[in-house]
Amino acid sequence: MLVKRLEMIPVECVVRNYSAGSLVRRLGVEEGLQLTPPTYELFYKDDVLGDPMVNESQSVSLGWATVEQLAQMKAMTLKINEVLTELFAKGDMLLVDFKLEFGLFKERIVLGDEFSPDDCRIWDKASKQKLNKDPNLYQEMEKRLGIELG
Amino acid sequence: MLVKRLEMIPVECVVRNYSAGSLVRRLGVEEGLQLTPPTYELFYKDDVLGDPMVNESQSVSLGWATVEQLAQMKAMTLKINEVLTELFAKGDMLLVDFKLEFGLFKERIVLGDEFSPDDCRIWDKASKQKLNKDPNLYQEMEKRLGIELG
Repeated sequence: MLVKRLEMIPVECVVRNYSAGSLVRRLGVEEGLQLTPPTYELFYKDDVLGDPMVNESQSVSLGWATVEQLAQMKAMTLKINEVLTELFAKGDMLLVDFKLEFGLFKERIVLGDEFSPDDCRIWDKASKQKLNKDPNLYQEMEKRLGIELG
Repeated sequence: MLVKRLEMIPVECVVRNYSAGSLVRRLGVEEGLQLTPPTYELFYKDDVLGDPMVNESQSVSLGWATVEQLAQMKAMTLKINEVLTELFAKGDMLLVDFKLEFGLFKERIVLGDEFSPDDCRIWDKASKQKLNKDPNLYQEMEKRLGIELG
């Protein structure tokens, strides 16, 4: 595994295909609504402030990222959503939402951190059972997707 | 005064030229920073939920407004900001921030509600004194702008 030291952008990118979590709590919408198109949200990474929701104009004006960097982060996040949604659908799963972090490596935007069960919600398509909290998640994924996870 | 009954869009538009209010509280930035370019924020009008900050993708996916309506609201709000910033500057004042609400009249986006001292922050340019909370606001404005307010 190649590890690069990135200058992290202090903004998390969240895509939601179905309503859950803070969207339900903050906006009073029902859980499990299909969001068409998927929502795309930014959160300022600051534990003391509780990772508040922000937007692109704030991120630019407060110097966290440039317009171009934010556009790349959005395009990459939405593309990853398409790929992962299709992957999980093959195992009868819904990718409800996930978050990604990005950094700069040699001034280029690259995906930082990892995609882990703590950074996403995955539900069984039919029962809406929350699979990412399953203690046997990795075995379940291997079975459903027919692949071996490292 | 012509009063039209509008179908209101449940999203408020806020422009900030300087940091103050919820931007300072939520994001931990210093008050009075000049924001370049001005920030543009949306808030979902819901007293019970405390008017939470939202973004355009949420507003579209939750059915509050269309992409086109949101683009018009943004363009109108930023244009109004330019005009008002220039107006207040003539009286040595800073237009710190303001909020606007929009509605639909015959399917067209029109400005709803009013622009009042409760919907904006206006500071004296030199002293940063908060003028919109001045009990003699209207007289002060008339004097500074050399106009008569109705």
